[in-house]
Amino acid sequence: MSIIDLIKQQPDLARFKFRARNIWVEGTHNRATVKDFYGAGKEDDTRDALVFELDEPPVLLGANRGANPVEYLLVGLSGCITTSMVAHAAAKGIEIKSISSRFEGDIDLRGFLGLSESVPVGYQEIRVFFKIEADLSEREKQELIEMGKKYLPVYNTLTKSVPVNVQLDK
Amino acid sequence: MSIIDLIKQQPDLARFKFRARNIWVEGTHNRATVKDFYGAGKEDDTRDALVFELDEPPVLLGANRGANPVEYLLVGLSGCITTSMVAHAAAKGIEIKSISSRFEGDIDLRGFLGLSESVPVGYQEIRVFFKIEADLSEREKQELIEMGKKYLPVYNTLTKSVPVNVQLDK
Repeated sequence: MSIIDLIKQQPDLARFKFRARNIWVEGTHNRATVKDFYGAGKEDDTRDALVFELDEPPVLLGANRGANPVEYLLVGLSGCITTSMVAHAAAKGIEIKSISSRFEGDIDLRGFLGLSESVPVGYQEIRVFFKIEADLSEREKQELIEMGKKYLPVYNTLTKSVPVNVQLDK
Repeated sequence: MSIIDLIKQQPDLARFKFRARNIWVEGTHNRATVKDFYGAGKEDDTRDALVFELDEPPVLLGANRGANPVEYLLVGLSGCITTSMVAHAAAKGIEIKSISSRFEGDIDLRGFLGLSESVPVGYQEIRVFFKIEADLSEREKQELIEMGKKYLPVYNTLTKSVPVNVQLDK
């Protein structure tokens, strides 16, 4: 039975909890680890730990020891849209030869630095450009993008906002 | 002169553009690359390319070839809060011995799978727990977290939403 059929019978199987841990190294350098998650009714701890270095470039007082936090946001968004488009194409029987994409987001550091109250702290806009190689017209490719957007977890988290509850660990 | 003083004189120096590229590999597996960015008035292409594998666990039809897109979102969020807390502590002359944190976000796959219109597609909530080792009271640690939250680019992108413009590349 597919996961979709299982979830229709037992909606609780659809509840997933994804996790990350982070430890500060020094200055703008910190390290995140992804390993376990909860989903389909059970804990899954079978993956090897995935380790990610985060840092800033020298112009932002780091030493390039990793991508920076807002770049990781684009990485997540890129995977989310790509996977969703592939899944939707497969469901429609469309054969895709290749998909590549580029992402660019604007940040005005005056927000982060507290130099202007009117400048947003986060991304002001994110632009995404997709190249799709498939036996489809421009319009069909555009439809594939639109169809996918409705069901993208990262995209919807970004565009619809999410409550983030930060507290001290006990 | 510090970047803050420079930006006060020339606000355009505060405009940054961060970027990522993505290429589909197969199924739920795709690969993102982070390299160049624009900031402080110029293009910066000096970093080595940073490559990130994205995939799903087997229960979500992948083969664990990388963290999944919504986990990358938590990685970015974790770095953003950590870096911001360190920067704010430094600005206040607070010496921090260690910071570690864990992140957990809830997703109900019925949204993604289109099985329920009332279930959000993205994260429903993200919980963040911080451990701070420093010569500070519980209340001062809490203030450090609150102080930081106002100026977090990823946090603010997530909690305030951002326009994401997706189009076909020409």
